[in-house]
Amino acid sequence: MPKMSFENHIMTQFDEELEEIRTQLMEMGGKVEQQLKDSIQAVIKADSNLAEEVIREERLVDEMEVDIDEACILIIARRQPAASDLRFVMMVTKAINDLERIGDEARKIANHAVILSEQDGLSQGYKEVRHLGDSVSGMLANALDAFARFDVEAAMKTLEEDAQVDLDYKSALRELVTYMMEDPRSISRAINVLWVVRSLERIGDHAKNLCEQIVYVVKGKDIRHQ
Amino acid sequence: MPKMSFENHIMTQFDEELEEIRTQLMEMGGKVEQQLKDSIQAVIKADSNLAEEVIREERLVDEMEVDIDEACILIIARRQPAASDLRFVMMVTKAINDLERIGDEARKIANHAVILSEQDGLSQGYKEVRHLGDSVSGMLANALDAFARFDVEAAMKTLEEDAQVDLDYKSALRELVTYMMEDPRSISRAINVLWVVRSLERIGDHAKNLCEQIVYVVKGKDIRHQ
Repeated sequence: MPKMSFENHIMTQFDEELEEIRTQLMEMGGKVEQQLKDSIQAVIKADSNLAEEVIREERLVDEMEVDIDEACILIIARRQPAASDLRFVMMVTKAINDLERIGDEARKIANHAVILSEQDGLSQGYKEVRHLGDSVSGMLANALDAFARFDVEAAMKTLEEDAQVDLDYKSALRELVTYMMEDPRSISRAINVLWVVRSLERIGDHAKNLCEQIVYVVKGKDIRHQ
Repeated sequence: MPKMSFENHIMTQFDEELEEIRTQLMEMGGKVEQQLKDSIQAVIKADSNLAEEVIREERLVDEMEVDIDEACILIIARRQPAASDLRFVMMVTKAINDLERIGDEARKIANHAVILSEQDGLSQGYKEVRHLGDSVSGMLANALDAFARFDVEAAMKTLEEDAQVDLDYKSALRELVTYMMEDPRSISRAINVLWVVRSLERIGDHAKNLCEQIVYVVKGKDIRHQ
């Protein structure tokens, strides 16, 4: 029937549009993941060139957010999706916000990497940055994997990783305060490392938000603030 | 802004629904504003009771976010709003996220107020907290006023206040580092003040986001990342 196939055609197009924003979201996730890794490397290796690259490329992440946001609003306006499709689109508008903020934190880490590369002093605190950086990068990678597969179980498992990130974060803070007390001349430098560590902890929080959104869209259940 | 001149009964109900989420949003804004003020007072007056109250009441802010979010999704699903109404609803879902994060920062400030109230030491850093706290509270109040009146001009003016907040923030950081260097025994305490100052600066950023959203919904123009 002509009408039927017309309808089918429209539904297929709608599906394609949903798939398109999902692909764009995963691309944005990949970009943000790279920004995070580069910013950590820039700190540990005192590589100001790499840091400058992260700072420059934040713009791309911002543009991705605006583009995907606009695509979501257009889909809602034109397609008037219901139930689970609507939840999916609403989730994407929230997820890109978390990804943008992760990009923002990576840029802040890169800013501190530039300052640290110009400061004299021991590399105290770098061990902690590497350790926490590994935990947080792993958590973000797992959150994005869970997103790609819409895997609630993987999302729940990743949520639990946040407790370890918090422990690593607190332990890093204690170490940094000890360095400062032992050598007050290191204070200014240690505070820059402190901001890096804080940004990493925030990124863990955003990765946690992403996981909660997966549970929300798949189960239709809001587990934030629980 | 919800249009007020519909003749059709169903449309009037729709207007009422839009007005309802706007009212809920303003209530949430008022609650968050109070949480911020109380958390700053708790630090300055070393009032751990007030701090505990802020920590307890964060739950209310979280509940408001979930309720408003659900109301927005229901409106989109049932009413299928177009153009400016859709932009308004989408903006609300973003604004409540910023408000919730402001509430979250206020709770963090309150946590540090509890720790600070138990630590010995001079009240160094409190002058900075009061000063920055005033700037940030003022900025949030102006952002919420601009929201209530959908006043783009007021929103743009409030956006400019962020530059002053950033200056106050940087000056507070410098003072704190000086205190630490002068008296290494104050380091642990000063770092708690440092986190308070950082949270205040973040709240300024969220107030800025709120203003950008007003411009977006009124002008249909995305000025983020500009």
